[in-house]
Amino acid sequence: MSGLSILFLVSLLFSNVIEASIFSANGVPIVRNISELPQSNYGRGGLSHVTVAGSLLHGFKEVEVWLQTFAPGSVTSIHRHSCEEVFIVLKGSGTLYLAASSHEKYPGKPQEYHIFPNSTFHIPVNDAHQIQNANEAEDLQVLVVISRPPVKVFIYEDWFMPHVAAKLKFPYHWDEDIFQSPKDEL
Amino acid sequence: MSGLSILFLVSLLFSNVIEASIFSANGVPIVRNISELPQSNYGRGGLSHVTVAGSLLHGFKEVEVWLQTFAPGSVTSIHRHSCEEVFIVLKGSGTLYLAASSHEKYPGKPQEYHIFPNSTFHIPVNDAHQIQNANEAEDLQVLVVISRPPVKVFIYEDWFMPHVAAKLKFPYHWDEDIFQSPKDEL
Repeated sequence: MSGLSILFLVSLLFSNVIEASIFSANGVPIVRNISELPQSNYGRGGLSHVTVAGSLLHGFKEVEVWLQTFAPGSVTSIHRHSCEEVFIVLKGSGTLYLAASSHEKYPGKPQEYHIFPNSTFHIPVNDAHQIQNANEAEDLQVLVVISRPPVKVFIYEDWFMPHVAAKLKFPYHWDEDIFQSPKDEL
Repeated sequence: MSGLSILFLVSLLFSNVIEASIFSANGVPIVRNISELPQSNYGRGGLSHVTVAGSLLHGFKEVEVWLQTFAPGSVTSIHRHSCEEVFIVLKGSGTLYLAASSHEKYPGKPQEYHIFPNSTFHIPVNDAHQIQNANEAEDLQVLVVISRPPVKVFIYEDWFMPHVAAKLKFPYHWDEDIFQSPKDEL
């Protein structure tokens, strides 16, 4: 038996042991240290995004969980998506802008809600919304839970842009940079 | 116009203003203070459960989010459910017991995983599992995300109880005590 074959068998044995102890059937670690997960701003100033549990990285089909940190003054786009979304504010404060009449031809003037540490808020399906860290000194950190991954996002330039003019991004994968799969397989 | 009618009109007006400012279309507050949400142990020693976002209380159809605190030494039942489940450990430590071969006739001997602050772990769909706060001094506090509410739970007396003998609880609503709706409407 060649050295290479032995090496292969040893690595196979080792990988089986590892899989039996910390990996689920699809090769994803069952327990993960959130502090050690990849984070990126994905080209957006003032943002740090960590996919805690994701469809692309971890094989989830029904939920995703994200950890997002917004620097002082930073803001998301105005956007909507056809999934349920729940936020939990871990630290910091800010403003949720929510257009509850998004069933009209455009989102319209949003309501404003103060969000604060240990608060939770949700976005009704397809309601356009925007989150801003209005604090000048402190980060806003939130856990985000969404259903129906991958998210299909419609982005608006302003609250009065017609729905038909909103820019569609689908699938919206935060993790395409990390996950080195060919695009064809997505 | 009688005093009662005026009172009714004033309360209607007031309730409309409130709904426009803090409630979504189905009457659920958009922003909720997690510290002020109802908590209960639902008859289980050593447990505190808060439904952060729920199907019964808040009208969610695709996800639920729970905040659960386990006193030192406390443990969940051995159980499984046909939904995705993600945990985020906010504080404390403990042990996850997970039977990855739950596709056999019974769960079988589980793997043990150490869970710790700022860790996340998930339960593959239908794998039997149990969570224990093995720490003698500190609470174990977790955020739990599940898909497909309400949860359909199968409970096992031990790891070698056949699946066909497991006790089914469905729908498994933490919040039936809080939500005063007639059972017929569930």
